[in-house]
Amino acid sequence: MAAKGSKKKNSGRRIPGPTNPMVTPMLTDQYQFTMAYAYWKAGKHLERAVFDLYFRKNPFGGEYTIFAGLEECVRFVANYKLSKEDIDYVKNNLSVSCEEGFLDYLRGIDCSEVEVYAIPEGSVVFPKVPLLRVEGPIAVVQLLETPFVNLINFASLVATNAARHRFVAGKSKTLLEFGLRRAQGPDGGIGASKYSYIGGFDATSNVAAGMLFGIPLCGTHSHAFVSSFMSLDEIKDKSLLRKDGSSTCKDFVSLVQSWLKKFERSNSLRGNFAETNQSELAAFTSYAWAFPDNFLALVDTYDVMRSGIPNFCAVALALSDLGYKAIGIRLDSGDLAYLSCEVRKLFCSIEKEFGLPGFGKMSITASNDLNEETLDALNKQGHEIDAYGIGTYLVTCYAQAALGVVFKLVEINNKPRIKISEAVSKVTIPCKKRIYRLYGKEGYALVDIMTRESEPPPKVGERILCRHPFEESKRAYVVPQKIEELLSCYCAGSSDKKEETLPPLKEIRERCIKQLEQMRSDHMRRLNPTPYKVSVSAKLYDFIHFLWLDEAPVGELL
Amino acid sequence: MAAKGSKKKNSGRRIPGPTNPMVTPMLTDQYQFTMAYAYWKAGKHLERAVFDLYFRKNPFGGEYTIFAGLEECVRFVANYKLSKEDIDYVKNNLSVSCEEGFLDYLRGIDCSEVEVYAIPEGSVVFPKVPLLRVEGPIAVVQLLETPFVNLINFASLVATNAARHRFVAGKSKTLLEFGLRRAQGPDGGIGASKYSYIGGFDATSNVAAGMLFGIPLCGTHSHAFVSSFMSLDEIKDKSLLRKDGSSTCKDFVSLVQSWLKKFERSNSLRGNFAETNQSELAAFTSYAWAFPDNFLALVDTYDVMRSGIPNFCAVALALSDLGYKAIGIRLDSGDLAYLSCEVRKLFCSIEKEFGLPGFGKMSITASNDLNEETLDALNKQGHEIDAYGIGTYLVTCYAQAALGVVFKLVEINNKPRIKISEAVSKVTIPCKKRIYRLYGKEGYALVDIMTRESEPPPKVGERILCRHPFEESKRAYVVPQKIEELLSCYCAGSSDKKEETLPPLKEIRERCIKQLEQMRSDHMRRLNPTPYKVSVSAKLYDFIHFLWLDEAPVGELL
Repeated sequence: MAAKGSKKKNSGRRIPGPTNPMVTPMLTDQYQFTMAYAYWKAGKHLERAVFDLYFRKNPFGGEYTIFAGLEECVRFVANYKLSKEDIDYVKNNLSVSCEEGFLDYLRGIDCSEVEVYAIPEGSVVFPKVPLLRVEGPIAVVQLLETPFVNLINFASLVATNAARHRFVAGKSKTLLEFGLRRAQGPDGGIGASKYSYIGGFDATSNVAAGMLFGIPLCGTHSHAFVSSFMSLDEIKDKSLLRKDGSSTCKDFVSLVQSWLKKFERSNSLRGNFAETNQSELAAFTSYAWAFPDNFLALVDTYDVMRSGIPNFCAVALALSDLGYKAIGIRLDSGDLAYLSCEVRKLFCSIEKEFGLPGFGKMSITASNDLNEETLDALNKQGHEIDAYGIGTYLVTCYAQAALGVVFKLVEINNKPRIKISEAVSKVTIPCKKRIYRLYGKEGYALVDIMTRESEPPPKVGERILCRHPFEESKRAYVVPQKIEELLSCYCAGSSDKKEETLPPLKEIRERCIKQLEQMRSDHMRRLNPTPYKVSVSAKLYDFIHFLWLDEAPVGELL
Repeated sequence: MAAKGSKKKNSGRRIPGPTNPMVTPMLTDQYQFTMAYAYWKAGKHLERAVFDLYFRKNPFGGEYTIFAGLEECVRFVANYKLSKEDIDYVKNNLSVSCEEGFLDYLRGIDCSEVEVYAIPEGSVVFPKVPLLRVEGPIAVVQLLETPFVNLINFASLVATNAARHRFVAGKSKTLLEFGLRRAQGPDGGIGASKYSYIGGFDATSNVAAGMLFGIPLCGTHSHAFVSSFMSLDEIKDKSLLRKDGSSTCKDFVSLVQSWLKKFERSNSLRGNFAETNQSELAAFTSYAWAFPDNFLALVDTYDVMRSGIPNFCAVALALSDLGYKAIGIRLDSGDLAYLSCEVRKLFCSIEKEFGLPGFGKMSITASNDLNEETLDALNKQGHEIDAYGIGTYLVTCYAQAALGVVFKLVEINNKPRIKISEAVSKVTIPCKKRIYRLYGKEGYALVDIMTRESEPPPKVGERILCRHPFEESKRAYVVPQKIEELLSCYCAGSSDKKEETLPPLKEIRERCIKQLEQMRSDHMRRLNPTPYKVSVSAKLYDFIHFLWLDEAPVGELL
């Protein structure tokens, strides 16, 4: 399913098609086809255009974004070809009886003339800086606009959301993505799993994503599993082999029940354990019997402290008698901070009273509509949670459901173009550009600077004037200690440039985690983070303002 | 692409697979497989279970929801089968060396024993009422949970969002879905196009959705098209055939320019028209030349009133000279209410001054981050907009990015099950149920009532006690004038029930529009709408509370 086709690239490697076979040249806006026709009619369709893909504002009130979705774009470009059915559909739906010559042209197009330069996937990126620079015949590049923006917008948004959740949860916690059922459609879910992993999650419940991308899977049982049992009588086979294989316990059910009895007599556990729910006990016993090495139980179907936890402990202790070690519990409702602390205390009491080293440290997973804010609140309250299962708020990016990625013409036929607007934030930065990230003495990134392609690159140790692209008074000298050029070639088109290879998912994830660790903390904090500086060279600044004045109409106050 | 496989159903028809080939049995949560294994180990996997799929709260602060996504669920069920690769993956990833017998069981499963009852797609639906009732072997039905919820959650959310936009915009306006680029992934976009159409939109910009579902397409050109032109000199071929084919205008460009000159001398247009942007003029001329019958121009690249509109009018009038009728303009920035009124005035002046009937009525399309609130604000301000292009806020359901659809066990082995919770809203309504919609004298729906399956159906003209499922004091007698049973059989499993056929998309859309028209207006209004009543029969009420007390632990105040 992953590869619907593949094309040989200049390195000799074959690049498979997009993960989702529905990503075809038809996954674009109708106006890309009407424009292609108008370009073709005007004889302009082969004119060489340069487009920048970027966003204007970091999401979630933050000051950073994780760039993701590049691999899918490259796979799309490498296999771009309209099918016969596509051509027929265009022919019948262009709202004009379009000329046969245009259809011939469409039949022939691919992306062999398209060059794609990009920041590596998984990088920390900032507003206004091109994530992609796409060059090629204008009609073709316009057709790529919609799929590129679609593939990058949500990918980058979810990766950023995941990174923000990781930041609040802290490095030591396990983050599980549980969002498939609430995601925006099938590959809303699959994409969310992939890009949450890039952003720092550890595992997903989504089996398809695990299979497609090799992401570790997680998951045990639901409330329905618990309520599907009525009583312990349902358990027919009661024998369980000891972990070391030395002997078989004939009646695992009785062993579990004997532990519940011991709890009644326990001082530290203060009784109250006799009336646990029998459906739940049967479900736990049965689940542990199927997964003796992997017993993790959802304990809130009836009552966490009076039923779920004692039932779990009885089963865990019975497993322990046979040499198995239970994993822990999951809480899916209630006051998670309070319950986790109570559960931890109880686990520790049991460790002490029954002499079971490690029982107190069993894992506590929390789920139930978690998001950045609830993680932050949990931290403030104090809790004993080891792992978070996060669904809806992560995968739908509930706090901000879209990133405003745009795709703008910056040059045609080697002539720079600007799109002006009454809103300064919407003015485009013209010209084919290079981008550099300048690092200071402490090793932190200080500023990104865009230059015209023809300018000599900045040099380490030299004083460089970095200007705000639109505000005259905002400028600063920087003496970089390290310089990184951000755009590399991913599709060489007909040029002889060397193409970057697409790194495996784990490498993208590692890049992301490493880059986030290297960010200055004031850019990262949740409350009033400091904006990272994005600038242009003095030369580019002058050129922007020359073009701007040239294009903008002079007003007339009446 | 639409059909990856197909299976013969009891009516002899073949049902194609899900639209997105990524919707496979692997598109589920890992815990569905671990539970399946535990059920299998316990010998419980074939126990007959009944699950209800429903949501707890209407989205967007409203009091109604449109049910969508059913067809995809039925297509999924009809073709359910694990592949060899799927089985291998499960084998290696169940976090246990699972027994070969279980893999054999998985190899054999399909949905031939699964019955699916559902409310027709496109219906107006309400919280707590099952949209789907799914019956079958528990292990299989649990595997269906995640894909069902995934397929229905977003579909229903977008359809509802679209219906709400339609409600505010009014029946007479044209609604265009422009969201593909900002959607949550490729089929986030394709799904949004499909379900927006069901909810009352007229067309989409998404070519893939048009091709897959036969939705009308819309779209003309972008800002980049405008800025890709430098001047009128670029237009080489200047000849344009008159619409009636009688003769050819040798120089369409000069004809356009002559109109701009006339504007300078026009009294009513007050001059100020000489300095229009020449890139824009060239782009419009070129676009009109390619689409003389379909000229709709985006007029805000430089300055709407001083450049875009005069340029547009010059081209439209030149077209008119040759017998063509321009369609209109699109505004994508600025004060849309004000600009639309100004543009309308100008169109009317031109109609008058140059004697062109119909020119004043040309279409004005508005776009730019529109949503329910902005449509409402536009209505309050007064405007002259005929069509809205709506993207981000529609397709990502920005105001509420997920619907909380759940899937709950209500019966196993003919024994009703309840899931209790400290939050009453989370208590499930047990039993296999029937649902009826009761209509009053005025023809409006009054209440939905759920009964136990075994109860005799309510009768027209008879007094029926409708009780709130959880609140004792809330109850009312109803004498229905018309009764609709809501659940019908879409997958008969091994029963001999007749299966409903899947209606075409247009029929689903018509059902939706019709049902919305029949809703009482107080349920529909945006501010403080009246909740529609959802009830249970007296018999079901008693049974719920009997079970509840039976399961709930008795508290102990310490």
